Amino acid sequence: MREITSKDNKTVKNIQKLLSKAKYRKEQGLFVVEGIRLCKDAIRSNAHIETLVFTEDALKKHPDSIKELENNAENSYVVTPNIFSILSDTQTPQGVICVVKALDNKLQFDKINGKYVLLQNIQDPSNLGAVLRSADALGFLGVVLTKDCCDVYSPKVCRASMGAVFRVPFVICDDECSFVKEFNDFGKSYAAVVRNGKSITALNYQGASLLCIGNEGNGLTDDLVRSCTCPVTIPMKGNAESLNASAAAGIIMWEMIR
Amino acid sequence: MREITSKDNKTVKNIQKLLSKAKYRKEQGLFVVEGIRLCKDAIRSNAHIETLVFTEDALKKHPDSIKELENNAENSYVVTPNIFSILSDTQTPQGVICVVKALDNKLQFDKINGKYVLLQNIQDPSNLGAVLRSADALGFLGVVLTKDCCDVYSPKVCRASMGAVFRVPFVICDDECSFVKEFNDFGKSYAAVVRNGKSITALNYQGASLLCIGNEGNGLTDDLVRSCTCPVTIPMKGNAESLNASAAAGIIMWEMIR
Repeated sequence: MREITSKDNKTVKNIQKLLSKAKYRKEQGLFVVEGIRLCKDAIRSNAHIETLVFTEDALKKHPDSIKELENNAENSYVVTPNIFSILSDTQTPQGVICVVKALDNKLQFDKINGKYVLLQNIQDPSNLGAVLRSADALGFLGVVLTKDCCDVYSPKVCRASMGAVFRVPFVICDDECSFVKEFNDFGKSYAAVVRNGKSITALNYQGASLLCIGNEGNGLTDDLVRSCTCPVTIPMKGNAESLNASAAAGIIMWEMIR
Repeated sequence: MREITSKDNKTVKNIQKLLSKAKYRKEQGLFVVEGIRLCKDAIRSNAHIETLVFTEDALKKHPDSIKELENNAENSYVVTPNIFSILSDTQTPQGVICVVKALDNKLQFDKINGKYVLLQNIQDPSNLGAVLRSADALGFLGVVLTKDCCDVYSPKVCRASMGAVFRVPFVICDDECSFVKEFNDFGKSYAAVVRNGKSITALNYQGASLLCIGNEGNGLTDDLVRSCTCPVTIPMKGNAESLNASAAAGIIMWEMIR
């Protein structure tokens, strides 16, 4: 365990760059998570922790957790509160950050009854994080992200997912229409549309099922809707044009497993 | 219609302060909404528009909308794009902002079948906005906010609500336990808890119903849970400790009206 005392330290600069630049995260195959809970979620999911950074204060307050993290980290550094503050993304930091290797997820297809969700061009990190969290809570087996979604490894997504990023397998997909067509060979795919789809209560969702949720402003592309088995709509009583993307996803995912 | 050319103009300074300070919004009884859609939602709900600010470009692109807004605004100002940019909260501004008088909502109680939601100490503006939007879409008749919730008039809440802030009546409540007890005289109240509540599928939600949703980290206070008719839980199959507050609210609200 080494000490970092300068803001100009190479590791500090590297973490700052990983926090702020999606492109750099992708090039390096690394991302950053903050806080005891997320860091321990990383260990539990057998993610590879390249670097652990913590403050003396964090060590005093959470000695067992920090030791567990140290035992699992390739490199560990103690930093001053001042240096930690330039790395922290939260208002009341716990003083623990891990640099984690990008996850090597593969989707396992349960062709009998597996439930999956596909997100097309979701741009709001809170929405992406919330859908991962809902997928985790509702027992979905995987999340498919189109490559134009916001970066799943951004600090905001990881935080909003409450660690679900480590628990729900996700893959990034180059050609979502082909993915859906292949899925249709053994299951059914549902395109969430604001109006004129089948009511979500009129279907039984038996067997392998894939829910597709589209961009916050524009919804799903016509091509993707056409690729799906069936368009589905949440029957609405009120005035809003539509629900928030993650609220709609939550309601339909719930309906699929209830 | 007058022109503003200086960043130091009184109206500009005032809008900046309304955008950034919840306390000032409360003192003045004013809030700020941005974009054609939200500004027109304000008119449609008969909100009082104190000030309209727009760019020449916005007038060229949306002449009818700007004229409609002008006809409904007490004061109108044209500003340069530079000045607009210091007032704008969005990345690609449409060049329209309205200062709106705080809404004079009252809850109308439909004691036969009205559905309502109460939010206790919700801190994330995206969650508050999303619940307003879900309430609007699902035909809920009102939202009750405890006074420790984040400010419903913040730019983030207004934007996340997609204008539902103008369509769903909301009130701010000093004593939520008393409110719930009075509601119980004619309806049933449901406390959303992570575990050990009745399954949300085991209830019929006939009659007037109030759903209570708690703080993102801590949930509902014990006092409020005890004040409710019944604690309710979303049966979860997966690993996450809980759902995001607005996702959980969306699922239970949906279950109440499906």
